[in-house]
Amino acid sequence: MAMNRGNAAQSREERLIARYFAPLAKHAGAFGLADDAAAITPPAGCDLVLKADGIVAGVHFFPDDPPDTVARKALRTTLSDLAAKGAKPLGFLLTLALPEGTGEAWLAPFARGLGADAEAFGCPLLGGDTDRTGGPITVSIAALGAVPQGKMLRRAGAKAGDRVVVTGTIGDAALGLLLRRDGSAAARWGLTRAARGGLAARYLVPEPRLAIAEILRAHASAAMDVSDGLAGDLGKLCRASAVTAEIEVARIPLSEGARAALSVEPALIETIITGGDDYEVVACVPPGKVEALRQQASAVGVVVTEVGAISAGEAEARFFDADGAKLVFARPSFSHF
Amino acid sequence: MAMNRGNAAQSREERLIARYFAPLAKHAGAFGLADDAAAITPPAGCDLVLKADGIVAGVHFFPDDPPDTVARKALRTTLSDLAAKGAKPLGFLLTLALPEGTGEAWLAPFARGLGADAEAFGCPLLGGDTDRTGGPITVSIAALGAVPQGKMLRRAGAKAGDRVVVTGTIGDAALGLLLRRDGSAAARWGLTRAARGGLAARYLVPEPRLAIAEILRAHASAAMDVSDGLAGDLGKLCRASAVTAEIEVARIPLSEGARAALSVEPALIETIITGGDDYEVVACVPPGKVEALRQQASAVGVVVTEVGAISAGEAEARFFDADGAKLVFARPSFSHF
Repeated sequence: MAMNRGNAAQSREERLIARYFAPLAKHAGAFGLADDAAAITPPAGCDLVLKADGIVAGVHFFPDDPPDTVARKALRTTLSDLAAKGAKPLGFLLTLALPEGTGEAWLAPFARGLGADAEAFGCPLLGGDTDRTGGPITVSIAALGAVPQGKMLRRAGAKAGDRVVVTGTIGDAALGLLLRRDGSAAARWGLTRAARGGLAARYLVPEPRLAIAEILRAHASAAMDVSDGLAGDLGKLCRASAVTAEIEVARIPLSEGARAALSVEPALIETIITGGDDYEVVACVPPGKVEALRQQASAVGVVVTEVGAISAGEAEARFFDADGAKLVFARPSFSHF
Repeated sequence: MAMNRGNAAQSREERLIARYFAPLAKHAGAFGLADDAAAITPPAGCDLVLKADGIVAGVHFFPDDPPDTVARKALRTTLSDLAAKGAKPLGFLLTLALPEGTGEAWLAPFARGLGADAEAFGCPLLGGDTDRTGGPITVSIAALGAVPQGKMLRRAGAKAGDRVVVTGTIGDAALGLLLRRDGSAAARWGLTRAARGGLAARYLVPEPRLAIAEILRAHASAAMDVSDGLAGDLGKLCRASAVTAEIEVARIPLSEGARAALSVEPALIETIITGGDDYEVVACVPPGKVEALRQQASAVGVVVTEVGAISAGEAEARFFDADGAKLVFARPSFSHF
């Protein structure tokens, strides 16, 4: 497609693709990125689970973030959705818009990070498109997964009596972002070097919970990934399921760093619960299945914590402190808009 | 995902999606865009054909292009690939990066154009993502199609003796782009108002050749869409097939406007053959099948023209003028890079 010819060399896009991205296209149906489209045979008896997500420099990541972490974040945030929907990844398409002058120093580590994660998560690059932009680096990923027919985990499906569980720890990425923006925060919160690094890493490179996709599908009645904050995302799940979630804030699993920060600045609880970028899973699970889910997840290295319960009606998520008082958030959910 | 909270309202993205895009998500598996991912059951016995493409304001379209044409171009350029690969569309995912202040005046016609084409081409919106950007409007489409297993038309597959055919007319969009940039060209070329409008329209809104996807699959040994210019794209097909194409330039089908322009400025033949944005199909067809392809395509309103033949070896595309002289292009293929 054409608008500006610019003054670029003839086949620079082809050379760039051949050099950096073709080596990542290990699926036979990607044709080494040497055709116009990929062709893959879907697994028998499965539904396809489809999700597209974009990240933009200056909005979703810092322009000076290491390029390998940008690639990994772009892929992982999308895989996080597949995990929460109970899907096994099949592959992904990449659309990359690059400012003039984006060269090897950025592309080589970007492709390296992308390739490492594609390998680690069994999700090969199937195709894509590289374009010039007058704006910031923009990375779009469209990922394809599979679930047994009719079995995608939905936001809808939560029932009164279900328990609410979350994976991992909540709030770390939001605190990591605060640390990035406020150089004095780490000292103020009394963080160890390790705790500070841990929070920063959670912002840079999330951990999609693909290890428990099938386990979630076996036990949960509803699930979604936490990308815009636990409060807002659980609220969306409640609205889709027409139920209310009642969450005990004291039970929300926190990392050591988050605990340290919270002990100094109790108001950070709002950042933790609403800040987003967690890429953990929040799920609703019938009471009789919680222990099996917890144990099976634990066996593959994922900690699952019960944080509350679902009741009928109202379609909202309520958070209560240790005294039983309901927390009120200035803004329950993160949004770029 | 979060980096800047900005000062935006809480759920503006959700409202925007509900207002403009949810009405387009007519496939049951899109869940009205009210879940995190789509779930669709792939047709039995089929391979999925997957293609992602991005367009960026100021690069692939003019920032003041009518928003409905931007949407239609974004979808159609991707559907053009599906058509050339012989695939029937199943649906698409949309990733939209919008600058601050992109409001109803842009979004309403964009969604209207997108919805009209999704309907017209039987390719429903399945999901997507809307993000803020500090740069230009960026639209990424990941489209999903289906072909019978193993039957995707490839760039590879052309054989010595095959005829080379193209759909529609070549060069119109590239001339339309020239007209857009050079206000005096229309008068210089002596174009009628209708011819001028026709060339401009071909640049703004291409016509994906989905009507003949199945017909192409039945007859062609190799095919691709012409997006970066006939010369360069046919060259790619030749390299993938390890063959040479010999094209008689006089046989390349031209619109009335292109003929008029060419009669005044014969040098425009290079723009016509290398300019790109055609979104026609170039295919290689065994000689015994050309007439059936031509007739079946004609029956659904698509003109197919034979322009040359395939011979063994060399892996390149050669263009000859009426005197049998080989044309040499400064740059055979358009590229943004």
